[in-house]
Parts: sequence; structure tokens; C-alpha cells
Amino acid sequence: MLSGPFLPKNWIGASEDFKSSKWVLVGMPYDGTCSNRPGTRFGPETVRLASWGLEDYSPLQNKEINDVVFFDAGELEFPFGNRDKTLSIIKRAAAETLSLGKFWFGVGGEHLVTYPVIEAYLEKFPDIAIVHFDAHADLREEYLGETLSHATVMRRIVDKIGAERIIQIGIRSGTKEEFQWMETNKTLLDDKSRIQEALKKLAGRPVFISVDLDVLDPSIMSGTGTPEAGGMTFNEFMSWLLEFKGQNIVGADVVELSPHYDQSGASTALAAKVIREMLIFFS
Amino acid sequence: MLSGPFLPKNWIGASEDFKSSKWVLVGMPYDGTCSNRPGTRFGPETVRLASWGLEDYSPLQNKEINDVVFFDAGELEFPFGNRDKTLSIIKRAAAETLSLGKFWFGVGGEHLVTYPVIEAYLEKFPDIAIVHFDAHADLREEYLGETLSHATVMRRIVDKIGAERIIQIGIRSGTKEEFQWMETNKTLLDDKSRIQEALKKLAGRPVFISVDLDVLDPSIMSGTGTPEAGGMTFNEFMSWLLEFKGQNIVGADVVELSPHYDQSGASTALAAKVIREMLIFFS
Amino acid sequence: MLSGPFLPKNWIGASEDFKSSKWVLVGMPYDGTCSNRPGTRFGPETVRLASWGLEDYSPLQNKEINDVVFFDAGELEFPFGNRDKTLSIIKRAAAETLSLGKFWFGVGGEHLVTYPVIEAYLEKFPDIAIVHFDAHADLREEYLGETLSHATVMRRIVDKIGAERIIQIGIRSGTKEEFQWMETNKTLLDDKSRIQEALKKLAGRPVFISVDLDVLDPSIMSGTGTPEAGGMTFNEFMSWLLEFKGQNIVGADVVELSPHYDQSGASTALAAKVIREMLIFFS
Amino acid sequence: MLSGPFLPKNWIGASEDFKSSKWVLVGMPYDGTCSNRPGTRFGPETVRLASWGLEDYSPLQNKEINDVVFFDAGELEFPFGNRDKTLSIIKRAAAETLSLGKFWFGVGGEHLVTYPVIEAYLEKFPDIAIVHFDAHADLREEYLGETLSHATVMRRIVDKIGAERIIQIGIRSGTKEEFQWMETNKTLLDDKSRIQEALKKLAGRPVFISVDLDVLDPSIMSGTGTPEAGGMTFNEFMSWLLEFKGQNIVGADVVELSPHYDQSGASTALAAKVIREMLIFFS
Amino acid sequence: MLSGPFLPKNWIGASEDFKSSKWVLVGMPYDGTCSNRPGTRFGPETVRLASWGLEDYSPLQNKEINDVVFFDAGELEFPFGNRDKTLSIIKRAAAETLSLGKFWFGVGGEHLVTYPVIEAYLEKFPDIAIVHFDAHADLREEYLGETLSHATVMRRIVDKIGAERIIQIGIRSGTKEEFQWMETNKTLLDDKSRIQEALKKLAGRPVFISVDLDVLDPSIMSGTGTPEAGGMTFNEFMSWLLEFKGQNIVGADVVELSPHYDQSGASTALAAKVIREMLIFFS
Amino acid sequence: MLSGPFLPKNWIGASEDFKSSKWVLVGMPYDGTCSNRPGTRFGPETVRLASWGLEDYSPLQNKEINDVVFFDAGELEFPFGNRDKTLSIIKRAAAETLSLGKFWFGVGGEHLVTYPVIEAYLEKFPDIAIVHFDAHADLREEYLGETLSHATVMRRIVDKIGAERIIQIGIRSGTKEEFQWMETNKTLLDDKSRIQEALKKLAGRPVFISVDLDVLDPSIMSGTGTPEAGGMTFNEFMSWLLEFKGQNIVGADVVELSPHYDQSGASTALAAKVIREMLIFFS
Repeated sequence: MLSGPFLPKNWIGASEDFKSSKWVLVGMPYDGTCSNRPGTRFGPETVRLASWGLEDYSPLQNKEINDVVFFDAGELEFPFGNRDKTLSIIKRAAAETLSLGKFWFGVGGEHLVTYPVIEAYLEKFPDIAIVHFDAHADLREEYLGETLSHATVMRRIVDKIGAERIIQIGIRSGTKEEFQWMETNKTLLDDKSRIQEALKKLAGRPVFISVDLDVLDPSIMSGTGTPEAGGMTFNEFMSWLLEFKGQNIVGADVVELSPHYDQSGASTALAAKVIREMLIFFS
Repeated sequence: MLSGPFLPKNWIGASEDFKSSKWVLVGMPYDGTCSNRPGTRFGPETVRLASWGLEDYSPLQNKEINDVVFFDAGELEFPFGNRDKTLSIIKRAAAETLSLGKFWFGVGGEHLVTYPVIEAYLEKFPDIAIVHFDAHADLREEYLGETLSHATVMRRIVDKIGAERIIQIGIRSGTKEEFQWMETNKTLLDDKSRIQEALKKLAGRPVFISVDLDVLDPSIMSGTGTPEAGGMTFNEFMSWLLEFKGQNIVGADVVELSPHYDQSGASTALAAKVIREMLIFFS
Repeated sequence: MLSGPFLPKNWIGASEDFKSSKWVLVGMPYDGTCSNRPGTRFGPETVRLASWGLEDYSPLQNKEINDVVFFDAGELEFPFGNRDKTLSIIKRAAAETLSLGKFWFGVGGEHLVTYPVIEAYLEKFPDIAIVHFDAHADLREEYLGETLSHATVMRRIVDKIGAERIIQIGIRSGTKEEFQWMETNKTLLDDKSRIQEALKKLAGRPVFISVDLDVLDPSIMSGTGTPEAGGMTFNEFMSWLLEFKGQNIVGADVVELSPHYDQSGASTALAAKVIREMLIFFS
Repeated sequence: MLSGPFLPKNWIGASEDFKSSKWVLVGMPYDGTCSNRPGTRFGPETVRLASWGLEDYSPLQNKEINDVVFFDAGELEFPFGNRDKTLSIIKRAAAETLSLGKFWFGVGGEHLVTYPVIEAYLEKFPDIAIVHFDAHADLREEYLGETLSHATVMRRIVDKIGAERIIQIGIRSGTKEEFQWMETNKTLLDDKSRIQEALKKLAGRPVFISVDLDVLDPSIMSGTGTPEAGGMTFNEFMSWLLEFKGQNIVGADVVELSPHYDQSGASTALAAKVIREMLIFFS
Repeated sequence: MLSGPFLPKNWIGASEDFKSSKWVLVGMPYDGTCSNRPGTRFGPETVRLASWGLEDYSPLQNKEINDVVFFDAGELEFPFGNRDKTLSIIKRAAAETLSLGKFWFGVGGEHLVTYPVIEAYLEKFPDIAIVHFDAHADLREEYLGETLSHATVMRRIVDKIGAERIIQIGIRSGTKEEFQWMETNKTLLDDKSRIQEALKKLAGRPVFISVDLDVLDPSIMSGTGTPEAGGMTFNEFMSWLLEFKGQNIVGADVVELSPHYDQSGASTALAAKVIREMLIFFS
Repeated sequence: MLSGPFLPKNWIGASEDFKSSKWVLVGMPYDGTCSNRPGTRFGPETVRLASWGLEDYSPLQNKEINDVVFFDAGELEFPFGNRDKTLSIIKRAAAETLSLGKFWFGVGGEHLVTYPVIEAYLEKFPDIAIVHFDAHADLREEYLGETLSHATVMRRIVDKIGAERIIQIGIRSGTKEEFQWMETNKTLLDDKSRIQEALKKLAGRPVFISVDLDVLDPSIMSGTGTPEAGGMTFNEFMSWLLEFKGQNIVGADVVELSPHYDQSGASTALAAKVIREMLIFFS
């Protein structure tokens, strides 16, 4: 090899050593069930490049990304057009990650990619609970005749874990049925004064945090397929996230970045920052 | 015809039945007096396509767009370069709509398109009042020597209805004279604590709501010709709108979406959502 | 209805009368197997809007689009993520079109959409031959483990009709195996001096013309998923097309326009012009 | 003033001295009659900035822009929405330029801006002839009911000078009537072998050259409102232009650059180069 | 000269008279040390064009830009690739401005351009203090081995004036060391309740205000090289600025606008508005 | 590690084995001396991502990229703002590559990056000759007072190797002096009929091929800082390149791709194809 200096090809702060890494960053460039605007397949590779515009240090948490040891595994390769095979590739990779004693940090891709990961988690962590940040409820029974879609993903997960093990934050779009379901099942946490009550759901459970970036307002996160006005600022998101301090977080993902709708690069920079803050938070 | 399934060519939730429709959506793709950046002519066709990314349901109002019966008439065709003929085409269409017992919901195009509509309304509703959402006062006596322009439109309307029948919300840009005029005539409502006083202006009157989308902050509504920082969020806009609950609303328009300055599509999605919320509000 | 004048919502020159139409324009907004850059789903709706920038008249053919009677059926609606169901919706629509005595003019979408159409044609025209314009051979046995993909579509068609019934024009990209297959099977027509020999393949057969727009050079057709330098100009394309004068053309499609990669709109305008010229050619 | 060095605010190579200048460069940022895509109003200011990316020297003509003395007058200011007043501002400026013994070099804006300039020229040069480069015939009697439009401009000019004093080059789009008119009146020069015959039209006459940039192929000139495939390369354009060597050229314009459709800047750079070559050609 | 009317080539509201001008607007189109995304070199010329979309009047301050007399000197010309020569050109221009009894209003370009200006100021105003608005601390000792960079500029300035003469507002990104330094030296003002204490730093001193536009949130200021979520709105910025009412402000700059990342033009419009408000504030 | 399947992070076809590689691909993301439009720093990383849209096989050469063994070393890291240190980092990397018995394949970045590479080559190959593809002569003595710039790079190289060892192809822009110099020194090869004469210059010499991508026409290569109409098509470029069959090619680079001016991605795809063809050509 040449002596360089060369720019790294991995995420900023990533370790070169798989063995000692606690978290594994895995890109899932899939956007096959998205009915509106595709392009989240470009999320993982673009956010990695953008990570090099970040500082190592988080003033909000007074910690550095180097305080967490994580490995950047790269992007999985999928057979486009075949949703089911794609999902099984993801499930196998997540299961392997867990079997090696690591935690999964997924980077989407569309939100459906969370489903096979939770399937894998349930085998190792049968009592897992989900914290779900999103603009959309993702609770439909089916969408355009399909039961597996980015519009149904949380319903499929609830089918497996039950409504009492999910907390939904930021939801501001959905069908009438989805909102009624959330009300009936008390899954929606829309007011911080009720946080203690919600945290009881997580008591003693391993926790998976799934962040659909469109939970953020389109003013700062235009780069997503279905922008929905009325969302959180970055500081509001962080203050919600930090409420989960002390929980037993064993997995996470950040999904739905669609770089082609982020002409300025500001959404991608923010997605990278969200990932940095989450990794630091988990350290 | 083929049995499909085909995607509709009309606005989401639009009725196929003109007769039973209460509201008529009419596109007015005109941007001829705009001195700065043109392109609002593309507003109506683009926002229609974007409407298919919306949910039917408004969580804010707990109603669906199907609760209002409206017809999508499509876009009027104009002779570009001839402002006066364009305005008379609009006026005739609005008059015809009213004569058929329907209410007009215009989609701009630039703000000048509101003027001929109000002319038509005055014949049927001589005591009509206007609620005007905008970043700009639009109250100039003339602009570049022209008395009919998107910078003078509200002044021309006031010439006909008087200052006591207009409420202006969100104005944050104009000449010194325009701001003095608003102060003298008490047309500017910039504080919700004064809402009751303002509503007295509307008492017993039919009301027309005209929304220049640049009343929203450019962070969420960059897709407009003259972005003006310091505007409303979507939630703030909705909370202002809902203050007019119970008024006798007989017409409305939403203008100044300029899709070429909305590279991400987020402004257009928001414009569609504003129209959805207004239609639901009127049901 | 209002008396207007309103802009039409259909393709320029389209008839309002399904019955008397000979050709049916059908949008197929599918891009699910595309491994590289998605977005051809936006092709049909965008090219329709662009058709209104065209003249009715073709100087090259000295005819007008009004000389052909065609109907604009709109876009089919697909369940994203489910390729097989999508293909069966297309096949059913094509079969219905043929059963009504009409000819199919498809607008893609990715190239895989041609496959179910040919399946339908084979039932009515068992001896059909294909003229295939493309930059890519589309002759792979499989792609990323899938046998149905936009990279395999012509191989799947050849599986049904045999190599002697296909003429390939403009191919300049593929695997070594694909180029060897074309050489062995003499399907590639890369020199106009050999046109007479090639036309013998079509003798007495009904002909389907399938145009992947990337056969055109990226300089004028950047708006496609996989731009491949070294292609045809528009005039060269037209001169190839006109060689098929007098053939019994019974179906056609134009695929792979991806408007998000056509920032200037020039590719979309050209796609509309190609469709206009083909419709006029078929009249 | 400060001693700098400061970048000039004028066109590259422009003289600071109005008096000694032979040519006057005047921007006409008007796009009011354009029915399709507006934006040529941004042409003049954008092409000036781009001129600073040019070399002074033309290898094709082996001359420098400094060999011609020209003045950059800046952009005229127009009352948008009022076509007729706009045209009279242009006419007055052109008449003044001629009265001062200078030649006009207009930069559009849409093609209608040529009309008032020719009106002014006819007063000083009643026998003027026109060389018209364009993709479109611009020969309609009226367009959308209007007789003054960028689609009718050459017909209006022909009304004044007669068909025998115009040469049209590059026309490839129009109505059937326009093409028949061109054939009847032999105005279209589509083959260089007929150049001598065409030059006879100009014998002894002062000549005005009007270049609609869409005469160039959209592959290199996407930045225009109505791109029309099948046009000239830059080298082909130059070889046509140089055929007019030795003619008595007394005025010119270059119109229809629409920078918002030139995302890469390549069209604008080419427009600047066309203007440079024309100025050098006139020296 | 022609009688026009011509659009001005200078900033809106700029005086033609250098002598009577109090402030001199100078563009510094340099972006040579920027390691992330270049393009601030296009800031000055773009913001000048955008200034023509502004009103003269500030409702927030109830004053007009005409209330301040300023001269638009244009952009300095730099030898790209030679940072040190570039800085000395700026220093000389700033020194000349001061020697003529004027105040400098710089428009960047990257933030490093502030350094030579402060060097010039220190010769005339040795006790000058700095108010520094920014998202980034810019306090590194070195960056990629370089001591002069837009990431080190405030450290270099502090080397000359000491930490007690700088107030930093809006900082939300930096290294651990930079944040520790700010804490140790109490330079960060992050809470308005501490404003009186901070103003003591300025007592009796001439003040230079340096605004890195990325202090604003990327939602309204995406057009910058290193967008950092969590910033100020325009109204928040203005309320901070107005706290400095009554200070002896003798110089200012506004830097880091990068128009290529401002596809909608909203950031550039805001940058122009910030400059307008500052000029009015200084009158 | 996980078993995947993962997408590679290197160039398509790159070997994982440095030792057995003959060629080393090195990115040089530098654009510091570019006076017009920066952004070539994004070239190397973007073209690598785009390489995954290519086929392995070249129909023009009937070979595959796997027929050449090359290593993708990644991008060098530079101290922006310090041109001289940047050049010495490149020189050292090139020298190291040569000392290990490998050949250098550089990916720019601006054209100045070729200079330090040639300096390194001259130590190992003192009789090296250059084949220079470019739109611009790059032969200035100095540019804006600087002797080291992308506008002077070939003059600096000629200073070292003499005019008799350089062949220039495609040059169509420069100063009068540069064109005179090329004529005097007979370095410009603008006609293939003179190829044999030109090849004599190379007889017995090792050859370095330097391709400035703007030698291609802006219609297919808009993604460059200084687009210059009148250039080559891809097929013309290839036919020039293949003329050098049988030469002793020991090094190469491809420079001046500026992805931010390639909104459609077509230029980047072409740049990747040019690199593929060159690598295959060298095998």
C-alpha cells in the first residue's frame, strides 16, 4: 500500500477492528415498496460521505464519537424487484450480527427494512420493545393490497410484539383508522409530561429505537420521500431522544433519507448528525 | 374504456359529479405581472400531482377530505402577454361558478388572480369581507407604473370594499407607506389576543379567504417567487385558520406556489396539505 | 361544467372518444427492478404535461398528430414492491385493449413492462416480431439472481418468440455473453446497409416496436436511469424508424424516461416528440 | 474610489467609453408572452456574469473581442404585465441608439423583443433585411388570440418588410401553415448549396441578424423555453454565420436563453460564446 | 449614454457617490481554504442580484435602506491558489477604506476573509472588539496542518486582541478543545439574560460585527458550505443584533453564503435581507 | 466480518491485492487554483460510485475491465488553501507508486494535479512524452500572477520536457499567444491524417496520457468547470485514443470532472466509462 495520507472510505469515527466493535453500522439501500417518490436506496452511501463534514464532538452530550466503538460494514446488496428475498438478506445479516454479540445500527433505505431486523431481534431478545420516531403511523393493515410495505411496517411489528411494547413519537399523518388505533392502544406519546408513564412500557426490556427521519420537519429534512409539515426541529428531536437515557438500548436504525430530494445537502448533513448523536448516546 | 386500475387525473378526493359539488377547484396558471421570479403558472398542475402523496385524513381537524364534496375543473387557459384578457377570463369563470350556486376555490398563479374573482363575488355578495394571509402587504397604489399587479392587488380590492372589510395576517414586508396605511386603517392583525375585535369586522358578512403561500416561512415554503424570512410555521398557520371557525366562508384561494423554486417538492406537498386542510375546514 | 376555456388533461391531440380510437396510450409507472437509479415511474405523467409544448405538426413526416386517432387512458396503478402482481395488471390491460380491437401504445416505466404486453400480444398475434431500440442488450439470463428484470426483458421475450423474430438497433452496452449471443443469433442491426436483409425477418408478420429511450445519446436524453454515451441523435433515430415504413405495426412502447435526471426538461420534451412522431408514423 | 483590483461589472471586453463604441449591448429581460416556460428574463444578467469565463480570443476567427469596440448599457427595466409599454421602451432605446450613430446588439429575453427593434431600424434603414436563426418559424398570424407574441414575431416583421427580405435558417418546428408559407415564399434556407441564391436577397441591403438560441441543439442549449431536438452544433452554427462575411451588418440580437433550464451552466457559457463570436465577426 | 430606464448594476439603495458614503460594501469572493464544500466565491455577485428583490423598508426597524449612505465597490479580484496574496489584497483594500474615513462592510466569501480586515482595523482602531455570530467556533489552533483557515480564523484574531475582546453567539459546533476554550475564556454568550455582562466587554470600544450566515438554521440558510442544524431563525438573529443598539460599530462583514447550495434562492434572499437590516441598523 | 452480500467500496473491477496490481488508481480531490467554478474535488469519490453503473465489458475493445489488474488506493487528503503542500503530497505519492514498480492512474481534481506527477515520472522516466487531451491549451506563462495554476500546467511541463515531447489534441480555447505558441511548436494535432508524423514524437519513449475531460463536448460533459462548446463526442475521443495502440504507456490521468455541474449524472457516468476504456486499453 501507499503511505498516503488517504481519506478513509468508512464512516467518520468508525473502527477498523470488527472484533472489538460493539455496534455494527449496516446500510440497507432498499426502496422497493415506496409508492410515492423512490430514492432512499441512495441514503446509506450518501450519508457516509457526509459524515466527513461532521465534527467528532457533540456539544449537546459533551462526548465524542470516538467514545463508542463501531464498525462500518458497508451496504448490503439486494435483488431489486424481489422484496421477499431482500428482506431475508437483511434478516440473515441482522441475525449474524446478534449471534456475534454485536448490536445492529441500520441505515435505510425505506422503513420496511426495520421489519426483518426486528424478526431477527425477537429470536435473541423475545421481550424487545420499540421506540418509533416517525411522521407517519405506518400502522396500516395493508397498502395497495400488500401487507409488507413501508406503510404497514409498524403494524407487522405490532402483530409480533403487541401494542403494549411500542412507543410512537411525532406521528402527524395517517388514516383515520390508524389514529383511532393509536388512541385505543395508547401507543402515541405526543406530550412530554406523559413520558414517565410511557417509560414504564420499557421497564426491564431491551429497547430498539427506530427513527424515520421524516419525524423531523421538512424545513430541515426535505430529503425524504413523503415530507410532512409540522414536524420537530433537531433540538426537539434530541430532547426526546435524551429522555431514553439509561434504557437498555440494544439496536437502532435511521431510515428514509432520500438524497435526491436534498439538493442543498442540508438534510444529509442532518441525518449524519442524528446518527452521530445516537451512536454517542449509546456509548 | 379499459377496466384499469387507473390512477385518477383529478385532485385527491375530488368528486366526478359537478352537480352535487359545493366547491369548484379552478387552476389559474398566470404569472404575468410578477416582476421578480416567474413560475407560479406551474402551481396548479404541480399541486394536483402532489395531492396524491397526501392522506385523506386530517388529524388536526379529525375529518377526511371526503367529508367535503368538491369538483376539480382543471386549469384555465390564458393568452400570455395580455393581462387584461386573462383577468376577464377569470372573472367570467368565477361569475359562472357563482351563478351555478357553487363556491370558488382558486389555485394560483400569482396573487393578481384574486382581483377578478372578487369582482365577480361583489356582484353576488356585495357585502363580502376578505381575510388576507400574506408576507407582503400588496397595498401599493401602483408598481412600475402599473395599477394592476400582484403588488397592488389588495389595494385594488380595498378600493372596492373599503379598509374596514379586510383582515391582513402575517404581513412582514412592504413599503413604509403600506405599513403606515395598515396602521392607519387597522387592517393588520398581528397578535391573536386581538382576534375577537377583528372578527367583528366579519360579523354577518360572507367571507373570502385568500392565502398567499409566502405567509409561511421560506424554510417550509421556498417554492415561491419572493421568499421572505420570518414567516409562520404550518402549525401556526393552521391555528390562525381555525380561528375563523363558524364564519360564513363562501370562497377562497391559495396562490403564489412556484414549483421551480421547490426542488425538493416539500413546498408543493405543503401547498397541497394547506388546500386539503382548507377544503376540510369548509366542509 | 364551466365553459372555460380549460387546458385539457390528456395528451396533446388525444381523442375524447375511446370507441373510434385505433391506438390506446397507457402509462406504466413502474420502476421496481431497476438496480441503478429509479424514477421512470414519473415518466408517463411528466411526458403528458410536456406534450403540450409540442406542435401538432411533424415537418419530417409532413403530417399532424390529428391524423391518427388515439385515446389517452392514463396511468395504471401498481402495488409497489410486488413485481409479479404489477406485471399481471399490465398483461390484463394489454389483453383487454387487444380484445377491443385496439393497438397498445405503452409509456414506461422501466423496460420490464414490455414483457407482459408481449405475453398478451402473443395470444392474439402468435407470429409477432419485435423491433428493439436500446443502448443495452437486455439479454441476460438473470440479473442479481432474478430472471425478470429490466436487464433480462428481451431474453425472456426471445425465450417465447425465438431469436429470428427480433431486430436490435443501437445496442452499445452489455456483457461479453450478450454481445456473443447477438453475434451468434444475428439480432444486432448496426449498419443500415443491412436493412433489407433484416426486414426479411418481419416479412408477413405483425410488428411491435419497443423503444428504450436510452438508445438516444445522453447528450439529448440524460433523463434516463443508465445513460450510455455513444448513442443516436434524434435525426438518426428518425431515419432508422422511417425504415419500417409499410410494415404491419400493431403495437409499440416508449420506455425508461426518468424525469428526475432531466433537470432542464429537454429529455422529456424529446420523449414527447418521439411519441408524437411514432403516433404520426403509425397513422 | 478604492484602488482594487476589482472585477469589472460589465461584459468581458466591453469598453468604458460610450462615445467611441460602435456597438451597444442592451439587455431586454422580458418573457411576458411566453406560453410555455418563462425565465428568459434572467438571460441578460446571467450571460454577462458568464462572459467572464470566456477567453478574449476566437481561434475560429483568429481575432480578439478587443478588436471590436462595444459598450455594455445594462438591462432595460420593464413594467411586467404590460406588453405594449414594454415594447415601446425597447423601441425608444433602439431608436436612440441608432440616432447616436451606433448599432444595436440586443440580448433577450424572448424573441418578441426583436419586433420593436426592427420597427426602430425601419425608420433609419427602410430597406433592411433579416437573417433569422431559429428552431421555430415564429410565423403564426396569431397565438392564443394575440397578434404580438414570441410565436408571431417574424410574421409581424414580414408584414412590414415583405417575405423577400428575410432568410430563415435552422427552422424545424411549426404549424403546417407556417411550413407551407415558408415553402411558398422561399424563406427557408436549409441547404448550404443554396447560399449564393439566398445572399442575393441581401444584396445592397443593411442586414440585421436575429439569433434565437434554440436554433442550437438542446444537447448544448437546454437552457431555453422550448427545446427542440434536431438542431445545430456550435460548429455548424458558426459555419452558417461566417457565410455572411462581407455583408453590411448593422444590428443583431441573441434571444431566448433561459438560465433556469441550464442547471450546468453549459448553455449560458455557449450563449456568451455565441455573442463573443458575433461581436468579433462584426469588427 | 442611453436614457433608459436601465436596471442599476449596484446593490439596491447604494449611493453613486463614493465621497459622501459612510460605508463601503466590498465583495471578497474567496473560498480557498474551505475543506468541505466550496462555492462561497459566488456569494457577493449573487447576493447583489438578489438585493433587487428586497423592499427598501424594514418593518422591524421602521427605517429605510436609504437612511444609510453606502457605496458598492464591487468584488475584489484574487489569484486563486495563492491564499497569502489574496489575504494581502484584502488587507490593503480595508486599510485604504479606513484611511479614507469610511467603514468596511465585507461580503464573503469564506470566513478567513475577516482576518486581514481585522489586521487593517487594528492599525486604526487598536482597541477594537469583535461580536462573532457563527455556528462554528473557528477557534482551532490549526486545521489540516494550516494555521490560516476558515476553521482557525477567530483563534488568529484572538491571538491579536485577546479573548476578553470577543463575544461569540450561536456557536453549536466545534471540537472538545474549542468548547473548553470558550468555557475557560467565557467568550460564548448563549443566553440573553447574560447580555449586560457581555456588553461590558464592549464598553468604550469600537466594535466590529462578523456574521457567519451559518449561525442561522439550515432550514432557512441551506446555502452554506457546512450546514449545522439547531440554529437561529431570522427573527432570533434580529433580536440578538438589536441588543447591540448604541454600540460604536465601525465595521462588519457577512460571510459564508454559498449560492450553489441554495437552489431555491431563499438563502440568498435572506442573506440580502440580513445585509439590508445591518446597514439600516448602522445608520 | 459479516457474510453479506455487501456492495464493494472500491472501483468496479478493482483488485483487492495491491501487490499484483499493475496500475494504481489515486484520487486527487484538489481544485484550489481554479478561478472559475470549483468542484472538481468531488470528482474522484463521485466517479467511483458511478463506476458501479458500468458493465465490465467494452464492446469497442472486446475486452473486460477484469483483463487489467488495478488497485483503488482511494483519495489523497490535502490541506486546502496550501497549493504547494498539496502538490508535494501528490508528488510523493506518485514517486512511491513508481518506486514500487506500479503505474499511476490519477483521477482529478483540477488539471494542475498532473504537474507533480510528471515531476515524479521524470525521475524514473526522464525521456517521458505526454499526450494531452483538452479543450484548453493550458500553456499560459502565468495566470492572475501565478505560475502554478490549472491554466499554466502544460507550460510548466513543457518547461521540463520541451515542446517536442508533447502532443495536444482537441484544443479549442486559449489566448492568441497560446495558439501562436502551438503553431510555432507544432504541438497541436487537429487532423488525424497527421497522426503518423505525430507518433514519431513518441518513438521509443514512455508515454503519459493526460485527459482533461472538457476535451469532450459540453453536450455530454457539462460536468466540468469551464465548458467549451465544439468538442468531441465519446466515439471521436475513443477513436483518437485507440490511435495510440502499441505505445509504451506508463501513466495516465483523467481530470476536471466537476459533479455539481452534472445534475443528471450523465457526465459522471461518461467519466467512469472513459476511465474503464483507458484501463482496458492499457491491459
